[in-house]
Amino acid sequence: MKLFNYFRSSASYRVRIALALKGLPYEYVPVHLVRAEHRGPGYSDRVGDPLVPALELDDGSTLVQSMAIIEYLDEMHPQPPLLPGDALGRAHVRALAQMVACEIHPVNNLRVLKYLTQTLGREEAEKTAWYRHWARGGLEAFERQLGLLARAREAAGLPPSRLCWSDAPTLADCCLVPQIFNAQRFEVDLSGLPRTMAAWEAASALPAFEAAHPSACPDAGG
Amino acid sequence: MKLFNYFRSSASYRVRIALALKGLPYEYVPVHLVRAEHRGPGYSDRVGDPLVPALELDDGSTLVQSMAIIEYLDEMHPQPPLLPGDALGRAHVRALAQMVACEIHPVNNLRVLKYLTQTLGREEAEKTAWYRHWARGGLEAFERQLGLLARAREAAGLPPSRLCWSDAPTLADCCLVPQIFNAQRFEVDLSGLPRTMAAWEAASALPAFEAAHPSACPDAGG
Repeated sequence: MKLFNYFRSSASYRVRIALALKGLPYEYVPVHLVRAEHRGPGYSDRVGDPLVPALELDDGSTLVQSMAIIEYLDEMHPQPPLLPGDALGRAHVRALAQMVACEIHPVNNLRVLKYLTQTLGREEAEKTAWYRHWARGGLEAFERQLGLLARAREAAGLPPSRLCWSDAPTLADCCLVPQIFNAQRFEVDLSGLPRTMAAWEAASALPAFEAAHPSACPDAGG
Repeated sequence: MKLFNYFRSSASYRVRIALALKGLPYEYVPVHLVRAEHRGPGYSDRVGDPLVPALELDDGSTLVQSMAIIEYLDEMHPQPPLLPGDALGRAHVRALAQMVACEIHPVNNLRVLKYLTQTLGREEAEKTAWYRHWARGGLEAFERQLGLLARAREAAGLPPSRLCWSDAPTLADCCLVPQIFNAQRFEVDLSGLPRTMAAWEAASALPAFEAAHPSACPDAGG
């Protein structure tokens, strides 16, 4: 398999974590977003939307959208599972992942930030305030959701979660950890988010999460 | 089951389509977004993020995030399936759904449009241009992706798709149809998107999609 990705793209980072958790080997193909390599013909011919990541399978098929890619990897390589064994648990984990991937991340994507400064003529400070507003608000919502789920687990007689859901890493952790990395780059206030930051810390310490970290990528700093 | 939703919310509309396709009965609980009922204590205590939809199950559990809810419904009520029977097909369908739910929709959500006008002081015309920019660009990407998938299907010896993927409605159609409804409200240029609009037209004509249409909701026009 070939992963087309960029070290600092948080959607790429999600897939790198999943590949590392599954122990799957892959060829790392860097696509430099800031140099607009994703818009060049070599890459943009493969994908409908010139975004990273994309995963090229050994049969030549190309998969896009990080969460769809991770669900595919989980179906084809079930161990260790990235979703709980019960439908209700899967719904909660997918929802946590989507709170990052559908609410926080898209509004702060590179192309949106560029539109703010280049098309709407906003200052850097307004762009940074925009980023922090959506990241902070989204993470506060994530924190409340973790609180609701903790109460639901308690009511169901389940033990507290060390990570986002239970003690085993899931799709939700694959999405949370890159989002916190990104929030730290923009110096978002991360205080007062005890459940979220505890899950982040516990997941970050796992070898697969360390292996997938942007600083460990071949194109790091490029 | 109780569906907390708003007639014009496109994420709510996705879930209504899935419930109608499955033939599942539910109580319709309107949450009026423009009157900010989603921020009131009756609703916002149930969910981490004050968004619609939310699905309350008969055991009292509350599910959030439209795509997580639809995957749950598909797991618990497998007929008719909303995802293909093979992992590669599922990956393609989920990716199409996410191209709407993670790329087009979030950037044009009500709260983002409000931030543009209220916090950044942008004019109505700039807000409309913003909406059209992301909707049009996202739908052009969707159209390209449908073209890539049509070629992949042909290479695999599969017949052309009448809907987004094959001739049976999937999660991708549940996401596309509400997005087009929304785009029409904002008078987005929908020309030159032949595959997308053919899939939209074919899905829209199905009874379940008609039953889920905003104009058929108890709170329509409210």
